[in-house]
Amino acid sequence: MTITDTPASTRSEASALDLGPATHLSCRECSATTELGPYYACLECFGPLEVAYDFGDVTREKIESGPISIWRYKDLLPVPRNVTEVPNTEPGFTPLLKADNLARELGMKALWVKNDAANPTHSFKDRVVAVALAAARELGFSVLACPSTGNLANAVAAAAARAGIRSFVFIPSNLEQQKIVTSAVYDTTLVAVDGNYDDVNRLASELAGQYEDWAFVNVNVRPYYAEGSKTLGFETAEQLGWRLPEQVVIPVASGAQLVKVDKAFRELTELGLVAGGGPAVFGAQASGCSPVAAAYKAGHDVVRPVRPDTVAKSLAIGNPADGPYVLDVTRRTGGAVEDVTDDDVIDGIRLLARTEGIFGETAAGVTVAVLAKLLREGKLDPDAETVIFNTGEGLKTLDAVTPVVGPAGTIAPTTEAFRALVPEAEN
Amino acid sequence: MTITDTPASTRSEASALDLGPATHLSCRECSATTELGPYYACLECFGPLEVAYDFGDVTREKIESGPISIWRYKDLLPVPRNVTEVPNTEPGFTPLLKADNLARELGMKALWVKNDAANPTHSFKDRVVAVALAAARELGFSVLACPSTGNLANAVAAAAARAGIRSFVFIPSNLEQQKIVTSAVYDTTLVAVDGNYDDVNRLASELAGQYEDWAFVNVNVRPYYAEGSKTLGFETAEQLGWRLPEQVVIPVASGAQLVKVDKAFRELTELGLVAGGGPAVFGAQASGCSPVAAAYKAGHDVVRPVRPDTVAKSLAIGNPADGPYVLDVTRRTGGAVEDVTDDDVIDGIRLLARTEGIFGETAAGVTVAVLAKLLREGKLDPDAETVIFNTGEGLKTLDAVTPVVGPAGTIAPTTEAFRALVPEAEN
Ligand SMILES: Cc1ncc(COP(=O)(O)O)c(C=O)c1O
Ligand SMILES: Cc1ncc(COP(=O)(O)O)c(C=O)c1O
Ligand SMILES: [Zn+2]
Ligand SMILES: [Zn+2]
Repeated sequence: MTITDTPASTRSEASALDLGPATHLSCRECSATTELGPYYACLECFGPLEVAYDFGDVTREKIESGPISIWRYKDLLPVPRNVTEVPNTEPGFTPLLKADNLARELGMKALWVKNDAANPTHSFKDRVVAVALAAARELGFSVLACPSTGNLANAVAAAAARAGIRSFVFIPSNLEQQKIVTSAVYDTTLVAVDGNYDDVNRLASELAGQYEDWAFVNVNVRPYYAEGSKTLGFETAEQLGWRLPEQVVIPVASGAQLVKVDKAFRELTELGLVAGGGPAVFGAQASGCSPVAAAYKAGHDVVRPVRPDTVAKSLAIGNPADGPYVLDVTRRTGGAVEDVTDDDVIDGIRLLARTEGIFGETAAGVTVAVLAKLLREGKLDPDAETVIFNTGEGLKTLDAVTPVVGPAGTIAPTTEAFRALVPEAEN
Repeated sequence: MTITDTPASTRSEASALDLGPATHLSCRECSATTELGPYYACLECFGPLEVAYDFGDVTREKIESGPISIWRYKDLLPVPRNVTEVPNTEPGFTPLLKADNLARELGMKALWVKNDAANPTHSFKDRVVAVALAAARELGFSVLACPSTGNLANAVAAAAARAGIRSFVFIPSNLEQQKIVTSAVYDTTLVAVDGNYDDVNRLASELAGQYEDWAFVNVNVRPYYAEGSKTLGFETAEQLGWRLPEQVVIPVASGAQLVKVDKAFRELTELGLVAGGGPAVFGAQASGCSPVAAAYKAGHDVVRPVRPDTVAKSLAIGNPADGPYVLDVTRRTGGAVEDVTDDDVIDGIRLLARTEGIFGETAAGVTVAVLAKLLREGKLDPDAETVIFNTGEGLKTLDAVTPVVGPAGTIAPTTEAFRALVPEAEN
C-alpha cells in the first residue's frame, strides 16, 4: 500500500488503531503531520515520516518491573498495549559488558560492549523486526517481507515463523552462505536477487507498491520498524544505572540505528529518566562502503551513493536512507563518522574476541577498528565513558576470519605428541 | 593435580576456600566425604565426587533481586561470594518461550522451549564453564582447559579470554569447521586430535595428571563444573512462576546436564522454593550414539560404550561418564531415554525453526525429534506441561541443514522476475 493509492476508508479507520503512545506521523523534512497508518512518505514533500508520541507518565520503576526484553519499554514504542500477549521472538535486554581488557589495550578508562549477538537470531535486527511486526499486525498487514543484507532476513524469517505468518525475504545472491541457510531454515520464501543490496531494495519498494497485504518492514512500515532501535539506547542507559555514556560508537549501514539510538537518549532525557547531556555519537563504516564517512569528512550535508565492495556485507548499503540524519546527529553531538579497511575489520574482530571473549561479525570488527582509529587520531576521548555496540554474531561471517585463525596443530592422542606441539606449556 | 599426588599442605588449606554454600565433596557411589579442593574421584572407591552444601536461607525474593544471569543463583552454586565482581561472560537467564505452534503440530497442550542459544557462545556450556572457572580460580588453578565436542571448546576459549587467562582446548580433528574457527578466534591454543571424543577425553585426563596448574573443566574440576547445569533447572522453575513442569526432555551426551537439572528441581523442592513433585525426566540421544538409550531399553544399570557415528557431533560421547545416573533419574521420575535417526534430527531442526523461529543445532534436532517420537509411542503425556531444552545454536551445525534448505530461486531485480518465480504470491 503506497501513500498515493490509500483509499480514504482505510485512512479514517486509522484513528481506532492501538499503537500505544504513538499519536501521529511527522515528516522529518517539513514537519507536516499525518495520522497513524501504513504510511512512510510525507504527502507534502515525500520526506520520510517518523512516529510522534504522547508518552504520558513513564517511570523507572514501571520499566524495571516489565519483562526482560524490549517490551519493558513498550510505553515508548509504537506497538499495541497487549504486545506481550502475542507470540514474538522476545528480543532485547542483551548484556552490557564492562570491557576492561579491551579498554586496557586501547588505553581507555571505561569501556562497555553492548552485546546484541545475544538476540534470538543474533543481531540487533530482532529488535526492529519485533516492533515492525507488532505495528504491521495492528495496521492490518498479513505478510512480512524485507530486502536485506542478511541479518534482517534472518530476523524477519524467524519472527514470521514464530508469529505463524508467511514471509518473503529478498537478499543479494552473493551473500554469505551462513546468512542464506539461516534464513531459509525458517521456511520463509527466500529470494536471491542478482544485484547488490541497493538493487534488492529498489525491487522491494516496487513490490511494496503492488502487494497490498505485505509489510516490508524496512520499506512501507519503516517509521515503526526504525523505532525498535531506540531500545538499544534505552537498555544502555538503564544498564548503566539510568545514566548516559559520554561517547558511543555505532556501525552505520542505512544509518537508522545510529539515528534512533540518539533519539532514545534524547527521549530519556526529556522524560527525566536520565540526567544531563547525551553522548557524542560516532558512526563506523568500512572503507569499501563509506558514503556517510566520506560526506562527513568532506563537510557535505548530502550523501553521494557508492557501489559497495567490503568484507562487511551487513553494512554494504551504498545509498543509505538515513545518511543525512547520521551527519546531523554526529555533528550536533560532537561525534564523527570514520571508516576502516577490510584488514582493520578482521583485526577488530580478533581484538574483541581475544580481549573480551566476544566473537562479533564483520560489523563489530568495523566498530572496534573505528574505535581504535578514533583513539589513535585523538578524535575520541580515552578518559570518557564509552559504549560500543556489537550488533551481530561472528558465526554468521566465519569466512572473514577462517583464513587467519585455526588449530595450533593436529596431533595423535598422546601426551608426547602434545608436548612436541606445544613445548612451551609449563608443568 | 590428581587425587593421589595431592600434597597434604594443599589439602589442609582447602578449608579456607570460599566456595559459597559448598561445604564438602561427597562420593556419588559410596557417600564417603572429602573436603573441598581440586578433587574429582573418591579416595575410597574412585567413584565420582559431587559438591555438597549447606544452603542456609535462600528466598525467591533474594534470587529475583539478583543479576540477570546464572549468578542470581550463586547461593546455590559452588562459587566464591564475590563471583560477580570478577570478569566473566555472564551466561544464563536465557528465554523460556511458550511454543504454541509446535505444541499444536504435535498435539500437545502446553509446551515451552528453554532457549540456551542466547548464551554468550550460544550453548548451555557457558553456564558450566562460568562455574568451573570461578571455582578453579578459588582452587588456585591458573590455566583453563578441556576436551570437547565443540561447544565446550567455544565456551572455555571465550571465558578464558574474558578472564584474561591462558587456555588449551582439545577437539576431535573431524569437528565441524564452524566450531573450530569459533574456538580459535578467541586466541586459545586449539589442539586438534586424531581420534574421536573419547580419545580426546582420555588424553585430557592424562594431561590433567601432568600439568598441575591446569583446570580441565570437565575432568579435574568436574564436580564444580557440572553444578553449573543446575541453573537450567533453576531458571526453568523461576520463569514458570516458581513452578516445576510435569515433563522435561533433555539431550544426553555425558549425561551430566540431565542429572544436574533433576538435582536442581530437587534442591528447589527441598528449599521450599517450589511446591510438589518434580517432572518426569526424558533423555534424548541420536541413534548413532545412543549407549544410554540402549541401556535404558535393555533394562541395564550399566552403559556399554559405543563408537559414535552421527550428525549430532555435540552429543557424540560413546562412553558417557554420567550414563548410569541418567538411567537412575529417568527411571525414578517415570521418564525414559529415547533415540532418533540422523534424518529425524534434521527434521527436528527444521520443525523447531519453522514453527517457533528457533534455529537449534543438531542436539536440538535430537531433542525435538525425541519429543515427537515419545508422543507417537505414547510414552509422553501430550496433556502435561512440558519443557524441552534447546541447548545449542544452529549456526554451529549449518552443514546438517545446508543440503536441504535454500533460496526458492535466484532472479533478476525486477517484479516480473519475482512473479515468474512465485506465481502463487497474492496481491
Ligand atoms: C550487524 C549489523 N550492524 C549494523 C547494521 C547497520 O544498521 P543500519 O542500517 O540501521 O545503519 C546492520 C544493518 O544491516 C547490521 O546487520
Ligand atoms: C549442545 C549440547 N547439548 C547437550 C549436550 C550434552 O551435555 P552432557 O554432556 O552434559 O550430557 C552437549 C554436550 O556437549 C552439547 O554440546
Ligand atoms: Zn514533508
Ligand atoms: Zn566412594
